[in-house]
Amino acid sequence: MYRKTFEGMNCSIARALDQVGEWWSLLIVRECSLGTSRFDDFQRRLGIARNVLTVRLNSLVEHGVLEKKPVEGSERLFEYRLTEKGEALYPVLIALMQWGDQWSGHAAPVQVVEHRSGKPVDPVGLRIGARVLTRHDVRLEPGPGASRETIAAVNARNRLVFGEE
Amino acid sequence: MYRKTFEGMNCSIARALDQVGEWWSLLIVRECSLGTSRFDDFQRRLGIARNVLTVRLNSLVEHGVLEKKPVEGSERLFEYRLTEKGEALYPVLIALMQWGDQWSGHAAPVQVVEHRSGKPVDPVGLRIGARVLTRHDVRLEPGPGASRETIAAVNARNRLVFGEE
Repeated sequence: MYRKTFEGMNCSIARALDQVGEWWSLLIVRECSLGTSRFDDFQRRLGIARNVLTVRLNSLVEHGVLEKKPVEGSERLFEYRLTEKGEALYPVLIALMQWGDQWSGHAAPVQVVEHRSGKPVDPVGLRIGARVLTRHDVRLEPGPGASRETIAAVNARNRLVFGEE
Repeated sequence: MYRKTFEGMNCSIARALDQVGEWWSLLIVRECSLGTSRFDDFQRRLGIARNVLTVRLNSLVEHGVLEKKPVEGSERLFEYRLTEKGEALYPVLIALMQWGDQWSGHAAPVQVVEHRSGKPVDPVGLRIGARVLTRHDVRLEPGPGASRETIAAVNARNRLVFGEE
């Protein structure tokens, strides 16, 4: 356990992460989605050690989640922006946020509402169209990239849930 | 970086985690959702060191994500089950899985379909009823638990996205 706790942060995503993992990377993505783009701002807002932040930012750039570009008009200053791949993490952030809202024991710091109507968004979850599904309504099937072990695990899960052969 | 890579696992959740964090805990939750309940089975299926697994399981029990109970008819054997709080992580797992499916560069190992109809579930994301929203359709508002810093960050984000005062 090499990192400090996120508990003191005013953010349900961070509180969820405190319970289920080591998640500086997703918190950096969260910051980007709030408009943070500069090293010193990430550092200050997350309270993260500079060497750890450097490692995490480089890794996110390497994985194509962020891109690093010179600030317009400068040769020495850089900014970090979400790529399309990074933007696609938004549902993960919101799912974590909503889980933290419900289960962290803290009142929600942030609400997500539709801009136009002011209505809160629905809980992120399993659906087909307007129909909401629970995990008991779904079955797993091997996908095109399934290994033998995955196929076995999927079949075992379906037997367990649905009593199938 | 104290852990081994998850890259070799046949699981898009693991592949997503390899890119964005340290996530043994969520992989344990994934295993629980597949029906795994015994220490040796987690150990074998995840290829996780026994001492690390012990720490992670204890932490998940402490946080109320898992409960640990004696196996029926035994005094020395235990099993781990998801609590309601743990079950509520399902949308997070599915959101990560779908992100990994799309962005890991590997074909999907697993598909989630409605049991009754065989139809694949929709991508997890922001919605109100049947309407799908993008992150550009939503605004953040301070929730009941917002701190001063959160209020400032939320207002800054809304100014950035919507050009508001």
